Amino acid sequence: MTFLRTWDALAPVGRDTGSGGYTRLAWTPVDAVLREWFVGEASARGLDVCQDRAGNLWAWWGDPDAAARAGQPGVVLGSHLDSVRDGGAFDGPLGVVSALAALDALRDRGAAPSRPVGVVVMADEEGARFGVACAGSRLLTGALDPDRARGLRDDDGTTLAEAYRAAGHDPASLGSDPAALARVGAFVELHVEQGRGLVDLGRAVGVGTGIDPHGRWRVRLTGRADHAGTTRLDDRDDALVRAARLVLDARGAAERHGCVATVGRLEVRPGSANAVPGAVEAWLDARGPDETAVRALVADATGGLRPADGVTEESWTAATTFDPALARRLSGLLGDAPLLGTAAGHDAGVLAAAGVPTAMLFVRNPTGVSHSPAEHAEEADCLAGVAALTDVLVDLVAPRAAAGTVAGRAT
Amino acid sequence: MTFLRTWDALAPVGRDTGSGGYTRLAWTPVDAVLREWFVGEASARGLDVCQDRAGNLWAWWGDPDAAARAGQPGVVLGSHLDSVRDGGAFDGPLGVVSALAALDALRDRGAAPSRPVGVVVMADEEGARFGVACAGSRLLTGALDPDRARGLRDDDGTTLAEAYRAAGHDPASLGSDPAALARVGAFVELHVEQGRGLVDLGRAVGVGTGIDPHGRWRVRLTGRADHAGTTRLDDRDDALVRAARLVLDARGAAERHGCVATVGRLEVRPGSANAVPGAVEAWLDARGPDETAVRALVADATGGLRPADGVTEESWTAATTFDPALARRLSGLLGDAPLLGTAAGHDAGVLAAAGVPTAMLFVRNPTGVSHSPAEHAEEADCLAGVAALTDVLVDLVAPRAAAGTVAGRAT
Repeated sequence: MTFLRTWDALAPVGRDTGSGGYTRLAWTPVDAVLREWFVGEASARGLDVCQDRAGNLWAWWGDPDAAARAGQPGVVLGSHLDSVRDGGAFDGPLGVVSALAALDALRDRGAAPSRPVGVVVMADEEGARFGVACAGSRLLTGALDPDRARGLRDDDGTTLAEAYRAAGHDPASLGSDPAALARVGAFVELHVEQGRGLVDLGRAVGVGTGIDPHGRWRVRLTGRADHAGTTRLDDRDDALVRAARLVLDARGAAERHGCVATVGRLEVRPGSANAVPGAVEAWLDARGPDETAVRALVADATGGLRPADGVTEESWTAATTFDPALARRLSGLLGDAPLLGTAAGHDAGVLAAAGVPTAMLFVRNPTGVSHSPAEHAEEADCLAGVAALTDVLVDLVAPRAAAGTVAGRAT
Repeated sequence: MTFLRTWDALAPVGRDTGSGGYTRLAWTPVDAVLREWFVGEASARGLDVCQDRAGNLWAWWGDPDAAARAGQPGVVLGSHLDSVRDGGAFDGPLGVVSALAALDALRDRGAAPSRPVGVVVMADEEGARFGVACAGSRLLTGALDPDRARGLRDDDGTTLAEAYRAAGHDPASLGSDPAALARVGAFVELHVEQGRGLVDLGRAVGVGTGIDPHGRWRVRLTGRADHAGTTRLDDRDDALVRAARLVLDARGAAERHGCVATVGRLEVRPGSANAVPGAVEAWLDARGPDETAVRALVADATGGLRPADGVTEESWTAATTFDPALARRLSGLLGDAPLLGTAAGHDAGVLAAAGVPTAMLFVRNPTGVSHSPAEHAEEADCLAGVAALTDVLVDLVAPRAAAGTVAGRAT
C-alpha cells in the first residue's frame, strides 16, 4: 500500500525522540530533506518536479501548460511538509502523502484522466520560523509582497532571503507566479482535522466549507530594563508585568466576543533572570466567526497600550468560503460526508481567495489536538482519507460531456 | 590618567550600537576579548596573570603564596567584566578598571606595600548565560558544585563545560581552589551603585554594609500544546495564561511581603504564534530584607502550581554582612562616607560568606538604573571612586605595627 510505505519513510525526519513531536521549519536542513524526499517520490513515479517562484514544489502528470491553454487546467492535490515547533506528524504531511497515494490509485486504474493531475508541496505553511503563515501560497498568489517576505526574520535574525539562499535558491526570484497558478484548475487539500467535529459525528472523513477570518498581530510592549534586586517595585516599569496583563486581557476579550485568542510566542528583553524586563514582543493570534468580533477582541486586548508601544498586523485573512457547489458534490460523492468549517488557516484558503476552485477534506482526529506531539489520526481513518481523496480525484478528472463544470476555472 | 585611558579601551567591546547596551556573556568570544584585554593590562604593568580552577583571573604584585605562608595574605581589588544581556557599561568593569588605576596610583607613590596586591577578574558574575550568578566566586569557594556547574546549559543547549572548553580551558579542572582563596587576606570590590542611595545623600562614594538575602527559582509550568485556531477556549490548557498569572502573583506577593520579585526570563514552548503554549519556563528572582519574607513571597507566588509543574531553587544566598569594623574604618577614611546596604548579589558577598574580610565601595549612579543601557556614572564620580579605592588600598597595605588587624585573615 502506497500510503503506509510512504508515510513510514517520512516518520523519522525532524522528529524529537524525547517529545515525539516534529520540528520541520521552512528552509532549514530538515525542510530540505523533506523536499528532497518529495522529489524522489515524484521521480519514482516518472514525474518531474518544478519549483515555482514562491518556493512551492509541483509534480505534474500530464502537460499542465497545454491543458491551461486549452481551457481545462489541471487538478492539484497536496498540502505542506513544514511544521510548527514540536508539532504533530499529520498537519501537512498527511495531505501530501495522501495525494501521492491517490495519484497512484488513479494510475493503477489505468484510465487516462481528462486533465493533468498535480501534487503540490506548499512552502512555509506554518510560518513558524518567519512569522507569516501560508507564505508559499501567499507569495504565489501575490497576497504576500516579495520584498516584505525577503525581509522577514527568524529568531536568530536570519532573513527569509538569507535562509532561501542557504537552501540553494535565489531570493531575488521570489514573487508571485501567475503561470504556475494558471495551471491549477482545482485544488483539493486533505488535512487532519484540528478539532473534534468528526469525532462527535462518528465519521472518518468530512468536507470543508470555509475558514473563519483570522489574523496575527505583533505587539511590542515597552518598559525600562533595570536591576532585579535594587529597583523598588514602585520605581519599576516592567514590560513583562504589562505583557502578563495583555495575555489575560486577550483571553477575557476572546470569551466576551465569542472568539479565540492566543499568545503563542513571547520574547522578553533583555531576558536575564536578574534584569527587570525592558521590552516584550508578543504575538497575538485571534480568530472568530466574523471579522467584527475578531477586530473588537484585538482592540480590547490592546486597549492598554502606550504611545511608545506598537501593534503590527502581520497577517489578516478574511473569511474564506470554499466553492459551495463543489463542497456539496464532494459530500454527496463521499456518502454524505459532513460539511465542516474550521478556524485554521490553510493554503487552500489562500488559493480559494485567489479564485481557484478549492475544496478540503478533513480526516478524523481522535483528540482534536493539533500543533502538538499528541496530534493523531488512526491508520484506518488515514486510509479512508486516501480512498475519499481518490474518489474525488477520479470524479474531477473523469472525461466530461461539456466544459464549464463546477470544478473548472471557466465556471 | 590611567582610569580614563583604560576605560575608553573597553568601551567598544560587546556594545550594541543600536541600544548602546552591552552583552558580554561568560565564555563567549566577547568575554575572551575582555579577558585578553585584562591580561594585556597586567602585562603592561609587569604582572603575570594566573587563572584559578574556577576560571577567575588574578594579577599579583608581589608573591601571594609567600605572604599567605607568612600569615599576611594579600589585598585584592577587582570585580567582573561580564554583563547581563544589553546591560550597562559600569556593572563590573568599573571595579576592574578602578582596581588597575588604584594599583597604578599606589605604585606611583613609590612606597613598598606591606603585603602583595592583587587585581581579580571574577568569571561569570551575572549568570546571564548559564543561570547561576557569581559562578566564578561560588566555584572558587566551593559554594557551587563543579559537576552542577559543568552541566548548566545556555539557551542554545550548550553546557558550561562545552563553553569553557570552547574558550580554551579544560572543564575537568573546574572546581574549588583553596590555594587561590588562601592568598586573599582582604577583598575590596568597587561597584556602580544600583539604586539611588548616594544620589539622595549627595555623595559620590559609599561603603557597603551587606547584601539582602536573595534567590532564584526556575519554575516550569505545564499545559497542553494545541492549535491556536481550532481549540475552543474551554478545551485549552494554556501554559502562558498560567505563567501570566504567576508573573502578576509574584508582583502582588512581593508588595505584601515588602520584598522585590522579578520574572526577567521566560521561555514559551513550542513558541509558535499559532500554537497554544504547552509549557513555560520562568525564572523568579526574589529578594528582601529577611529570609522569612523572601521565602513567604516565593511560596505565595508558586502556590498555584500543579504536581506536573516544577520549582527548582537555582541559587540561594543568605543575608551577607561585610566585616563591620572594616566598613566603619573605610567610611572614616573616606570622610564619613555613607554606609549602604544593597539587594544586589556580588562576588564580594560570596567571598565574605567564605570568611574573607571583604568590603565594597559604591559609586553614585545618577538614575539608580542598572542592568540596562541607561546605567551610568559621571566621570567625576568614577574618578572619586578611584581616589577612594586608592586610599583604601594604601591603608590596607601600609606597614602595621602588629599583626591581627581587622583586614587580616588572622583577626
